[in-house]
Amino acid sequence: MKKLLVTGIVMGLFSWQAAAQTIVLTDAEAGTELGNWKTDSKKLNITGADFSIEQKVLHGGKQEGSKVITITSKGLTIALSPTRGMDLLHVTGDNIRLGWDSPVQEVVNPAYINLESRNGVGWLEGFNEMMVRCGFEWTGHPVTADGMIYTLHGRAGNTPASKVVVEIAEKAPYEITVRGQLKEDTFKKARLETWTELRYVPGSQSWTIHDELTNSSDYPHDYQIIYHSNFGQPILEQGARFIAPLKSISPFNDYAKKGLTDWPTYAGPTKGFDEMVFNMVPLADAQGKTVAGVVNKAGDKGASIEFDTHQLPLLTLWKNTDTLKQGYVTGIEPGTNYAYPVTIERKQGRVKQLQPGQSTVFELKYSLLPDAQAVKQLEDRVKTLQGEHKTDVISQPIAVE
Amino acid sequence: MKKLLVTGIVMGLFSWQAAAQTIVLTDAEAGTELGNWKTDSKKLNITGADFSIEQKVLHGGKQEGSKVITITSKGLTIALSPTRGMDLLHVTGDNIRLGWDSPVQEVVNPAYINLESRNGVGWLEGFNEMMVRCGFEWTGHPVTADGMIYTLHGRAGNTPASKVVVEIAEKAPYEITVRGQLKEDTFKKARLETWTELRYVPGSQSWTIHDELTNSSDYPHDYQIIYHSNFGQPILEQGARFIAPLKSISPFNDYAKKGLTDWPTYAGPTKGFDEMVFNMVPLADAQGKTVAGVVNKAGDKGASIEFDTHQLPLLTLWKNTDTLKQGYVTGIEPGTNYAYPVTIERKQGRVKQLQPGQSTVFELKYSLLPDAQAVKQLEDRVKTLQGEHKTDVISQPIAVE
Amino acid sequence: MKKLLVTGIVMGLFSWQAAAQTIVLTDAEAGTELGNWKTDSKKLNITGADFSIEQKVLHGGKQEGSKVITITSKGLTIALSPTRGMDLLHVTGDNIRLGWDSPVQEVVNPAYINLESRNGVGWLEGFNEMMVRCGFEWTGHPVTADGMIYTLHGRAGNTPASKVVVEIAEKAPYEITVRGQLKEDTFKKARLETWTELRYVPGSQSWTIHDELTNSSDYPHDYQIIYHSNFGQPILEQGARFIAPLKSISPFNDYAKKGLTDWPTYAGPTKGFDEMVFNMVPLADAQGKTVAGVVNKAGDKGASIEFDTHQLPLLTLWKNTDTLKQGYVTGIEPGTNYAYPVTIERKQGRVKQLQPGQSTVFELKYSLLPDAQAVKQLEDRVKTLQGEHKTDVISQPIAVE
Repeated sequence: MKKLLVTGIVMGLFSWQAAAQTIVLTDAEAGTELGNWKTDSKKLNITGADFSIEQKVLHGGKQEGSKVITITSKGLTIALSPTRGMDLLHVTGDNIRLGWDSPVQEVVNPAYINLESRNGVGWLEGFNEMMVRCGFEWTGHPVTADGMIYTLHGRAGNTPASKVVVEIAEKAPYEITVRGQLKEDTFKKARLETWTELRYVPGSQSWTIHDELTNSSDYPHDYQIIYHSNFGQPILEQGARFIAPLKSISPFNDYAKKGLTDWPTYAGPTKGFDEMVFNMVPLADAQGKTVAGVVNKAGDKGASIEFDTHQLPLLTLWKNTDTLKQGYVTGIEPGTNYAYPVTIERKQGRVKQLQPGQSTVFELKYSLLPDAQAVKQLEDRVKTLQGEHKTDVISQPIAVE
Repeated sequence: MKKLLVTGIVMGLFSWQAAAQTIVLTDAEAGTELGNWKTDSKKLNITGADFSIEQKVLHGGKQEGSKVITITSKGLTIALSPTRGMDLLHVTGDNIRLGWDSPVQEVVNPAYINLESRNGVGWLEGFNEMMVRCGFEWTGHPVTADGMIYTLHGRAGNTPASKVVVEIAEKAPYEITVRGQLKEDTFKKARLETWTELRYVPGSQSWTIHDELTNSSDYPHDYQIIYHSNFGQPILEQGARFIAPLKSISPFNDYAKKGLTDWPTYAGPTKGFDEMVFNMVPLADAQGKTVAGVVNKAGDKGASIEFDTHQLPLLTLWKNTDTLKQGYVTGIEPGTNYAYPVTIERKQGRVKQLQPGQSTVFELKYSLLPDAQAVKQLEDRVKTLQGEHKTDVISQPIAVE
Repeated sequence: MKKLLVTGIVMGLFSWQAAAQTIVLTDAEAGTELGNWKTDSKKLNITGADFSIEQKVLHGGKQEGSKVITITSKGLTIALSPTRGMDLLHVTGDNIRLGWDSPVQEVVNPAYINLESRNGVGWLEGFNEMMVRCGFEWTGHPVTADGMIYTLHGRAGNTPASKVVVEIAEKAPYEITVRGQLKEDTFKKARLETWTELRYVPGSQSWTIHDELTNSSDYPHDYQIIYHSNFGQPILEQGARFIAPLKSISPFNDYAKKGLTDWPTYAGPTKGFDEMVFNMVPLADAQGKTVAGVVNKAGDKGASIEFDTHQLPLLTLWKNTDTLKQGYVTGIEPGTNYAYPVTIERKQGRVKQLQPGQSTVFELKYSLLPDAQAVKQLEDRVKTLQGEHKTDVISQPIAVE
């Protein structure tokens, strides 16, 4: 049994795989913060895998003090930020980048963001992630209701993680797990706590997000979550395609109505396009599993997200095929909800609730599709799930903001 | 004469006890910040007392960079936070904890708080202190008036101290003083500056808060202050009692009216209780001195606060006997004001004013009551102060928010 | 050829003077932050000039983590803050201080400022600079429009610089350049990026601000800028004079109307004066160059600002001759706009626009006037520029807020 000894604290809270190596990078309770830190398979005396894991504290501009964890292996390089809700910044493998180029280039420390600014869209000042959790108190577009502003896309993405733990399995394939705890705790208002988890087997081209949200209060509490997963170049391009098995699709608003004719296909960077959003109900297999993805025009690179419709029954497609500098990007967004303001989601009965002490899990498997074969497999799976079902194309928005 | 030499700067601003040892932990003017720092009676060559004083910089979550000073002795352990307005986090002696368990568990750095959020109650995202200063520009519930939001409970509690100085008296009983300067300075709006002071004699079970508020501007300025002092388990329990000599009591709002029958007694943790608030006018001795306290059911542990009704003429009782996870806590809150919005306090003539250059002092003595004898002493004192006076129970709220 | 080797990164982005010494203090992209840092002419083996350049990270209160760069030479000492938009804090030469004494005494880290607070005047909680850039998305008084608050004086002054570079010319006179990059980047909203530049020849009593603002987005974007340059004692005093060649002057509002009779002269510190603001159109030479300044009563000290009316066609005079503790200060403010809310500036056609990728430059030369001769030179230049023109004194405000 090997144990990594670092200035952190070895956690005993979870029943890990026996003898896993555990490094606590951050622990608010214990006051731990390793700051700039690095390990790799060599240091860990692991010969069966080749990887490194590094945490860096960033400097300059509005990213002063932001932390980024980067996992590097031959399969993928994955960057995520504990300071920004454990969200994924970007992932790269085989020279294919999952992620996009936002006008916001820094990993903005939430200390420099006022989520309420510009009438509740301060979130836009930090948005550049490949995957950002929109939740958990609320998830959608901003709205003033109940005497307050429900700010755009909730607070989780701008909540620094209270605990961050890296675990490396002792045995092959030496799975790496990065856990981060997000606390949305406000006296009288909320006590929603989420253990986020990134699971990655070094060398592979997939990873799993496994989040467990708990209502730690003594009262029932509403929750909402959208996994806002964003892809730009090189996958997104003119003729790139969105693929998913769908029961139905409807336009988010009037502007999206004209996109109903060619919603599965992407335009190239288009001045004045702004964004077009579609609400979808995915089809799934008997276990509730489904998949959605985006592939390039040639069909030889792409990305897919597998998820569980029991956990995340809805899917939003965000086509933001505006110019490159404005942000050329598409969002594939499994969620409990659509992106309407919480007032509409409530009214239409889509907001879920956790009872006191109750937890719920969200698990998504992201894959890089590096070649035509991988793209073909995705297409085959989608075809199978779609089967004989015809996608119901609803011509009118189901709600008006 | 002994002098402690540290990388700080020895202050000459105040006429301390001769030869006191003075350590500057923080000084914005000089750019001093000792960060993690510790001393104790041994290091200081003090044999007549046994104590340590430590400053820690916290990490993780929204407490990144927050500082906590902890004084430890056989009498009490006192934790306060320079980053959060020199407020008291918790105090413990004889295994009795003064303080409470808030859903907010971190010592939140104000950099991560927007006091205006949720329509002016952002303060709730950091609230977990045993004693928080609600002031000094304003103190009560939020209200939109004069074209702005007066946010819940003012700004002092979310103002990092500009200077922090620890002083240890040279002679027995080696009183420890922790001073912190809070600046509520806004061009055109306010120049209220407060030197807060915690005075503690090692080994004892009492401490004194001595704050001097100065209007450093050339114009008169309103001020308000409530010392929001909060107690949960183990003192608070079903059958615990609030004790104070009272001229009158009135319900804060309609909800509190039904609490008028048993206001001196506490319920156990009660689902759905939320909070019940009472406005009180305390009785005092000829010098204006009075006391209020909370004791457990058995009457063998408690806490008391002595204060001066010339400085703090009013008293608010906050009964938040909701569930443990929601926050089971009572607030005993001497103040210049009640917790109504500043608009009501103004209208009803309770807002005080400082003239240019004028200062005013607030002094409160907090005591841990470790046994039945100490509780009895409190009860005797309250009886004496109450004397023949009957508490006037006013059935209707004096104002409606 | 000499090169300074530090842990920073030598920039190759600009075509500097050959063989200049370049030190990167901060670089968000590379993660560079030198923190506390110092160099001087001796260390650099420069014999023909005598100067030092230092960066300090501040501590305490709301200035925790703020950085200040100080250039010291026999001519001037110049302090500026990368954390606060590269703005100038104060400049001193010959015992004459350019700058003023604000009630806000700390170099407030924007992490502690909510620009939207008090209905959009949070900017006042950090304002104490000798020169602050009010821009670039908008510049004037706050207004709620387009469903949002345009906060007082824009965001640039509360934007930490993403890159900070110090350059020292290799040859005499060893000009020092401090560049700082400000990013006003918000997804969907703005991509305005400014390279600010301070140029200073050691030993001299003038410096140049050279800012290049670029619209890095693919869409046209409005911009506004006011260089809010502020002077208090010892130059400002009863009988001090404002000097500039003017085509016209009008009162900003009704209150300023009564100041039209003696606008070129300053009152001493005056209780209840508050602020009086005048809108001016400066006269310039054939190349568009002009100058404005403030001189003391005796006419033996002062400050001047030379600017280009093609870049900055308007001038605001801010007379805030209130009491010393309230802030006794005058602002001489060349700009693209007046200080009215953006709604008024738009309506009256003064808001400028940058096309996609377009840049624009603002250059201002500030001078300390150390003696009667320098003051006389300023007066002569103003007289020449004024020539036969009579200043048109417009009696009514051109707009009402």
